Amino acid sequence: MSDSKKEIMEATYSALCRHGYADLTIEKISAESEKGKSLIYYHFDDKEDLILEFMDFMTENMDKCLNNLKSKDGEERLEELLDLLLGFEDEDMWEFYRAMKEIQGRAQYNSELQEKFMNFDDLLMEEFTQVIDQIDVENVEIKAEILLSAVQGTLNRKITSDGRESMEEIKEELKDIAES
Amino acid sequence: MSDSKKEIMEATYSALCRHGYADLTIEKISAESEKGKSLIYYHFDDKEDLILEFMDFMTENMDKCLNNLKSKDGEERLEELLDLLLGFEDEDMWEFYRAMKEIQGRAQYNSELQEKFMNFDDLLMEEFTQVIDQIDVENVEIKAEILLSAVQGTLNRKITSDGRESMEEIKEELKDIAES
Repeated sequence: MSDSKKEIMEATYSALCRHGYADLTIEKISAESEKGKSLIYYHFDDKEDLILEFMDFMTENMDKCLNNLKSKDGEERLEELLDLLLGFEDEDMWEFYRAMKEIQGRAQYNSELQEKFMNFDDLLMEEFTQVIDQIDVENVEIKAEILLSAVQGTLNRKITSDGRESMEEIKEELKDIAES
Repeated sequence: MSDSKKEIMEATYSALCRHGYADLTIEKISAESEKGKSLIYYHFDDKEDLILEFMDFMTENMDKCLNNLKSKDGEERLEELLDLLLGFEDEDMWEFYRAMKEIQGRAQYNSELQEKFMNFDDLLMEEFTQVIDQIDVENVEIKAEILLSAVQGTLNRKITSDGRESMEEIKEELKDIAES
C-alpha cells in the first residue's frame, strides 16, 4: 500500500472514531489528514469503495500484530492475544469498535463487504487454532471457535460502558477454558 | 398487546426474514398480513417507531419461552436454553437473525433502539445466571457472561452458512464449560 493510501486509511480510522459510518463523508476523512478531498477521490470512487480497502488495511494491521506473538510459548501467546483483542484502554478504541459494528450491520446484504469481515474472522480463527494447539489440549478446533466467539460476543456486549469492569475476570476465565 | 398489534408484529417478523431492515417498508409489512397499510399507520408513525415496539414484542416472546424452562433442573434447563438460542433449524430463522444484526448495527447511535437491545440482553443474562447458579459451580456471574457472549458470538459468526456443521459440538463444549 502506498504511503498516500496509508495516510488516507489512518485518517479514515480517526474519522470513524469521531463520526461513525452513517455520517462519514470523504470531506470528514480529508479533515483528519493533510490529504485533500481530490486526492482521496483520485484513489476511491466513494466511501463504500474506500471502506472495502479500509477493511483490508485493518486485516493487514491485525496480521502484523499477530506475527509479533508467534515467537511466544502457548500460554503467554494466549495471554497477549486476549490483551490485544479485549484490552481496549482508551475510549477511542470503543468508538472505533462501535463504528465497525455499524459497518458489519450493513455488510449483511453486501457480499463484498461481508467477505472482508470473513477474511478478518479467518485470520483470528487461524491464530486461536494455532495458540490452542500449542497449549496442547483436546478439541482444538471447537475450543478455538468458542474462544473467538466469546471474545467477539464480549466486545459486542461491552460497547455500552455497562459492565466493562468485569473484563479482567473474563480474560482469566477464557484462559482457564483454553487450558482445561 | 392488542390482537391487532400482535398481528402487525408477526407480519413484521415475516417481512424482516424476507427483505431485511433497510428495504423494509410499511407496505411490505402489510403484504404479510390481512391488515391494511392505514391500520399499521394508525398504530405507528413509521417503521422506526414500529421497530421499537417490535423489539419489545421479541423480548416478551423470549421471556415466555424462558419461563417454560424454569421448572427443569439445572443441566436440563441449560441444554434446552442452548437449543433455544442456537438450534436454528430453518433458514428463515437465520434470515431473521441477519436482519436483527442489521438493526443492531443501526442501534449504535440510536439510544432508544440500543436500550431495547440491552433489555433483551439483560433478560438472557438473568437466565444464564440463574441456570449456572442452579448447576452450583463457582464464578457464576463470569461464567454466565462468557456463555452468553459465546452464544451471541457463535450466532454472529454462523450467519454465513460456513461452518454451521460444528453447532452440536459447540453446544456440548458450552455445557462442559458451564459444568466445570
